[in-house]
Amino acid sequence: MKPAILFGGASYEHEISIVSAIALKKVLKTPLTFIFLDAEGGFWHIPAEKMRSNHFSSGDYRKDDPLTLVKGGFEKRGFLKAKPLEGFDTVLNLVHGGQGEDGTIASLMEFFAIPYIGPRKEASVISYNKWLTKLYAEGIGVQTVEYQVLHIDGDRNLDFDFPVIVKPLRLGSSIGVSIVRKREELDFALDVAFEFDDDVLVEPFIEGIEEFNIAGCKTDEGWILSRIEAPQKKEFLDFDQKYLDFARTEGVQEAKIDPTLQKDLEETFEKVYGTLFEGALIRCDFFFASGEILLNEINPIPGSMANYLFDDFAGTLSKLARSLPRPRSIRPDYAYINRVQSAKGPKTGMQD
Amino acid sequence: MKPAILFGGASYEHEISIVSAIALKKVLKTPLTFIFLDAEGGFWHIPAEKMRSNHFSSGDYRKDDPLTLVKGGFEKRGFLKAKPLEGFDTVLNLVHGGQGEDGTIASLMEFFAIPYIGPRKEASVISYNKWLTKLYAEGIGVQTVEYQVLHIDGDRNLDFDFPVIVKPLRLGSSIGVSIVRKREELDFALDVAFEFDDDVLVEPFIEGIEEFNIAGCKTDEGWILSRIEAPQKKEFLDFDQKYLDFARTEGVQEAKIDPTLQKDLEETFEKVYGTLFEGALIRCDFFFASGEILLNEINPIPGSMANYLFDDFAGTLSKLARSLPRPRSIRPDYAYINRVQSAKGPKTGMQD
Repeated sequence: MKPAILFGGASYEHEISIVSAIALKKVLKTPLTFIFLDAEGGFWHIPAEKMRSNHFSSGDYRKDDPLTLVKGGFEKRGFLKAKPLEGFDTVLNLVHGGQGEDGTIASLMEFFAIPYIGPRKEASVISYNKWLTKLYAEGIGVQTVEYQVLHIDGDRNLDFDFPVIVKPLRLGSSIGVSIVRKREELDFALDVAFEFDDDVLVEPFIEGIEEFNIAGCKTDEGWILSRIEAPQKKEFLDFDQKYLDFARTEGVQEAKIDPTLQKDLEETFEKVYGTLFEGALIRCDFFFASGEILLNEINPIPGSMANYLFDDFAGTLSKLARSLPRPRSIRPDYAYINRVQSAKGPKTGMQD
Repeated sequence: MKPAILFGGASYEHEISIVSAIALKKVLKTPLTFIFLDAEGGFWHIPAEKMRSNHFSSGDYRKDDPLTLVKGGFEKRGFLKAKPLEGFDTVLNLVHGGQGEDGTIASLMEFFAIPYIGPRKEASVISYNKWLTKLYAEGIGVQTVEYQVLHIDGDRNLDFDFPVIVKPLRLGSSIGVSIVRKREELDFALDVAFEFDDDVLVEPFIEGIEEFNIAGCKTDEGWILSRIEAPQKKEFLDFDQKYLDFARTEGVQEAKIDPTLQKDLEETFEKVYGTLFEGALIRCDFFFASGEILLNEINPIPGSMANYLFDDFAGTLSKLARSLPRPRSIRPDYAYINRVQSAKGPKTGMQD
């Protein structure tokens, strides 16, 4: 596998995608191609030695080679004619949030017939929208925390007692998320969340709930599941903390958990992954309360691909790259048009 | 509004999209730009006078001008340099099924910042996948027929008695759909459906159920709802019949229905449309049984845009074109990277 890391994107997580790409450069020892997507929709080929965060914040990346999407890959402007960008066989979608996770990148890769690791269109839409994640979980028989959805133009009456947690419906990385402990704080928290999305998810906030994260993917050689991590117990990771999280390159200690619970978590992960997430390496964040596993969040492009949870991260990616879903090929044969035309006579077609 | 009709696409409904575009040419009196998407992903500018079905079935369209997607629109190859395709201000997504309805076209239009009429990414994914449509309907409190989903690798045990109706999970236009009256016919029907999709929806088939279709859209000037049609009572429209349906340009008689039912159907339509389908003109097909309205199908790009259901179709499209959702603009300010960099010193960046 010769991966091209696609990162950046028009997303509130643009910066952490850069950090995530820099982390992967450290972790993967193979030669990597780096493709930066700027906030305006321009693609740039970034030489590996320039992969420093200030190369992007300074705008210096604009001195690198711009790329154009073409069938099968990317092209660089050449002196006389365009030439294909070489050196990779699979794009790794590392655009966190926004275009990376809302189905845009998936659509571009499929439309331009570029093999890629990352969530497909349906998987993107379902995991990016927290309400759809709830509906999906319910549909496959996985529990979640109860919730309600508020719309920017709707009322603000809550179905639950405080404390509650307020989240923009379509963002990751804790942006715009607040814990609200009393009614007086609610309006401000909602105003903040509505800055980012017209819809907001409200859930009861469960103090001190146990959390377990597990990452993995399905490959032609079977499931590859990561170690299970019991993340640091802080109320919740805010954007700054998660930002640092995206730079993680060091392995974590496996959570000390009961073997039955471990098996249940792994089975629930596989159920969530199903066929929907084929082609992606995802991380599921679960709650565990009163003996029950609840799905909190599906992260279809986890920070630095959750490399720190795997024993053999590079090997996992390679196996996944060999197991990408093969789209059905659809070729119209014009059978119907031809039939109608032959009934009408060859000259008229269907214009009348 | 100066529309460009985008039609064709890699879809089992490629041909009916051509027919649909020809029908719109008849219905809309304004000058139209025609953009054909061939099955290989190439865009072509088709002169209006060449809009006959045999122009496509013969492959003659390849003598027209190829187009390239660029920021803000399409470009034609010029003699010395590329020049923008002019003459339109809004793309009308008329690619039925496949890329048109699965989120691909929506993603392309948004990525390349081209204003378009059609379902957005989430709306596409939810209406294209009949299981997700069921989950969505349940989530908004709209009833549907009971169902089960079978996977190509799974068992074939049914939860219902015969007759049942078998549908590929992700296609429109009755392709691969069968009514199965007894067990001996089931395997063949499932084999046919699995030719088109790895997942198949099975529902009890309700003989002689009442059906009502209603189309419409939300605009800045309010809701525009079409006449309600009680479609021809045949068991169900097969592909040939639907094919002709896509060529319809003549107005239909309004169904004679009770005013209370009409109001209920209209309200259910608006509930389904919600905020999800903003930017699109959709048709909902409802069942009515035992005094209850059930959502059968959401068609986010109905054949020939269901023009025959509207009193003022051109006016409806114009109002919709002025009411397209405005995407939030996201511009990274590199605040976090700059903060981390200034803490570390300006030279190192985050490479270590």
